[in-house]
Amino acid sequence: MTEKNLYHRHLVSMEDLSPDDVLQILQTAEVMKGVSEREVKKTPTLRGRTIINFFAEPSTRTRTSFEIAGKRLSADVINISASGSSLSKGESLKDMSHNFNAMNPDLLVVRHSKAGAPAQIAKWTGRLVVNAGDGRHEHPTQSLLDLMTIRDKKGSLDGLKVSIIGDIANSRVARSNLISMRKMGMSVTACGPATMLPVQIGRMADHVTTSLEEAVEGADIIMMLRIQTERLERTVFPNVREYARLFGLNSERMKKAKKNVLVLHPGPINQGIEISPDVVAGPWSVILDQVTNGVAVRMAVLYLLLGGGLNQS
Amino acid sequence: MTEKNLYHRHLVSMEDLSPDDVLQILQTAEVMKGVSEREVKKTPTLRGRTIINFFAEPSTRTRTSFEIAGKRLSADVINISASGSSLSKGESLKDMSHNFNAMNPDLLVVRHSKAGAPAQIAKWTGRLVVNAGDGRHEHPTQSLLDLMTIRDKKGSLDGLKVSIIGDIANSRVARSNLISMRKMGMSVTACGPATMLPVQIGRMADHVTTSLEEAVEGADIIMMLRIQTERLERTVFPNVREYARLFGLNSERMKKAKKNVLVLHPGPINQGIEISPDVVAGPWSVILDQVTNGVAVRMAVLYLLLGGGLNQS
Amino acid sequence: MTEKNLYHRHLVSMEDLSPDDVLQILQTAEVMKGVSEREVKKTPTLRGRTIINFFAEPSTRTRTSFEIAGKRLSADVINISASGSSLSKGESLKDMSHNFNAMNPDLLVVRHSKAGAPAQIAKWTGRLVVNAGDGRHEHPTQSLLDLMTIRDKKGSLDGLKVSIIGDIANSRVARSNLISMRKMGMSVTACGPATMLPVQIGRMADHVTTSLEEAVEGADIIMMLRIQTERLERTVFPNVREYARLFGLNSERMKKAKKNVLVLHPGPINQGIEISPDVVAGPWSVILDQVTNGVAVRMAVLYLLLGGGLNQS
Repeated sequence: MTEKNLYHRHLVSMEDLSPDDVLQILQTAEVMKGVSEREVKKTPTLRGRTIINFFAEPSTRTRTSFEIAGKRLSADVINISASGSSLSKGESLKDMSHNFNAMNPDLLVVRHSKAGAPAQIAKWTGRLVVNAGDGRHEHPTQSLLDLMTIRDKKGSLDGLKVSIIGDIANSRVARSNLISMRKMGMSVTACGPATMLPVQIGRMADHVTTSLEEAVEGADIIMMLRIQTERLERTVFPNVREYARLFGLNSERMKKAKKNVLVLHPGPINQGIEISPDVVAGPWSVILDQVTNGVAVRMAVLYLLLGGGLNQS
Repeated sequence: MTEKNLYHRHLVSMEDLSPDDVLQILQTAEVMKGVSEREVKKTPTLRGRTIINFFAEPSTRTRTSFEIAGKRLSADVINISASGSSLSKGESLKDMSHNFNAMNPDLLVVRHSKAGAPAQIAKWTGRLVVNAGDGRHEHPTQSLLDLMTIRDKKGSLDGLKVSIIGDIANSRVARSNLISMRKMGMSVTACGPATMLPVQIGRMADHVTTSLEEAVEGADIIMMLRIQTERLERTVFPNVREYARLFGLNSERMKKAKKNVLVLHPGPINQGIEISPDVVAGPWSVILDQVTNGVAVRMAVLYLLLGGGLNQS
Repeated sequence: MTEKNLYHRHLVSMEDLSPDDVLQILQTAEVMKGVSEREVKKTPTLRGRTIINFFAEPSTRTRTSFEIAGKRLSADVINISASGSSLSKGESLKDMSHNFNAMNPDLLVVRHSKAGAPAQIAKWTGRLVVNAGDGRHEHPTQSLLDLMTIRDKKGSLDGLKVSIIGDIANSRVARSNLISMRKMGMSVTACGPATMLPVQIGRMADHVTTSLEEAVEGADIIMMLRIQTERLERTVFPNVREYARLFGLNSERMKKAKKNVLVLHPGPINQGIEISPDVVAGPWSVILDQVTNGVAVRMAVLYLLLGGGLNQS
């Protein structure tokens, strides 16, 4: 396992990474976390590299996290959002990608509402691509920050029991973690209303349940998913209140959890729907650690993919 | 009075600053103004510091001013606007603030439509906060740039007579200046239609009048406030034309003013409503000096609060 | 011809540049293109300079190109878009320009829907201005990147035959190129439906035709213009399909073109309307070279106007 492992590879799916790759990213991220804790939060590693942060779907937290990560590595970061983009003038995604590519960026960070868009862009352009969330498909840096947070608190990943709870069928966070967590030796329980579980869930998870109690009991890690309330009311569930009653995590339900359990949530949080304020603020909550680790993990990914420090001038 | 005075303090209200603090900021701002006049407008003072520019209300001039100030000090500046933010996904301000905070910024610049939002964010996060305008409450860096502009032209502040004219009840600019100007030994006259004066104005100002003539005559400084025309027509005043007739400053009315009077306006200007184009362009106008000094004052505030140069690595 | 030629001059129109000026920009741009091909895409040339990128009309490609150009020269680049600007609060363009100017930028890049806006801003402020597209008037850096692309492929410009095809009356790209190409010794044919040719086209171009076949045959360079489909259907042409049938460039029509012909398009492309996908992807297409050269040309312009390197500290 050398620094060259990840050099010049895409990060589109957690399928792209071996367990060794994951560990290398997490170890590098610990160093990067140290950089962010210093007064001078900056290394010259990626000076003179151009990173295009292309967010065709609105996002604050992920866009900001990648922007801070790039800047702390001294890269030039260019933000492009959907609304201001020429996509709104009817340009195809392919033409737009070729166009960006012709400006010699070193790496494209891509968020898009269509599953597969980052992979397509990587194929069209041959440029390094990091998937920052594509439709219902994947969100690999979210999974990496989840793994970092768990490993920081638990010491290792192997053998841990995780319950992922919520609208799994529509969650790219769930999908990336179902891949990566089992790869890292964790046992994953998928929990949600039957209408929110993908048909192939039996092959994707180690256990499946529609009972929140069952998912909470015995888990080392509880990962709550964000409910998209707009979606919820329209199609798959009677209403928000009913969802909160059956699948909302509150401190009453936490009584049945393990003493050292961790609670994760990718944010933004719907307080009082999928999770109650007292759980968010409780001792088990590592939700803000996730955000901190998000910057660290993205610094590590940008650094390793771009080979910063290896060929630095 | 040492450089340490303001180190690691918030700037939420002009109440936060002693007269010595104000003078220290103004003196530092003069040095910073010199930096902006050089060909290389840059000092390495805040290299590696992360400043989040969070503008939950639209703004060009103040956002740009803070962004330029941060960059001229070599900080990494991250802009976050309301429309692109996860507030639009229903995230609470508290959750969003904690989220930003977890990314290890050194300082948050906050503009928000709710009075008290910056103070709340400072309390929630423990992170350094500079208020860039909160509702009808305060806009302290605007007051500092006003004071700098006056001091530059008049040599000192003590004993000067200022008239603040317009919709005082709804103006954060007025509120910050009513606090700071009296603190610096100036005598403040508040002038506006009775419906635009706050009920407690008698305690806030040295003099109160509803006569523009009275406010103009004898003043060393005339500070015109921006009228929010949308608001005006709906509630507190017959109409815009009537407002301009009674409270608009024009060159005819300037005839009764002191020879060396200064006219200030925080911008953006409604030409021909609260102020006429010939007054804006006249010899008494220091409106563009205010903008120049805005960058200088913000550089000084960022520098002093973050202790740049003291602990620089 | 020395480096001082362009120092402290505006770039508002291609009329502003002599043939020597154009050649100096193109030669400098070749050096800049080399910078963008390096791993460390950065020179310290404009460190500490402040460039305001003011885009009052939406744009991704041009805004991004200028932003990357500025950052690769180490300038501080401040983006200001129309929607977030105080223009939306009713501020006049003149007041806004004075306001920007008071923040001591070194150069303003201006895109505006009104012809003449960049020239006005230059006049009002006395600050260096680069026109990034103003209404139907001009887009000089687009013309420069077109010239660079042609010169790169053809070795020189003098004596080449160019056909500009499309809605010439409304195209700032056409207008800038009609000026610059003839100045550089090229022979220009203007082609489009009669309703899309300006009345004075006879004086602006060397040849005029409404026949696409005629324009294609014998041309060394074919420059297709973007059709604004919204506009098209409303006023000047029966419909989009009819336009594509008569003036769309496809590979069938390319059979009559010269063997070494180049096809240019300023983008964003309406695939299948003014140009077919197989022409865009064909061997004659230099559309992506144009984008690459856009960054290089803008780096050269910023460098030469700001005198970077001459007085560098």
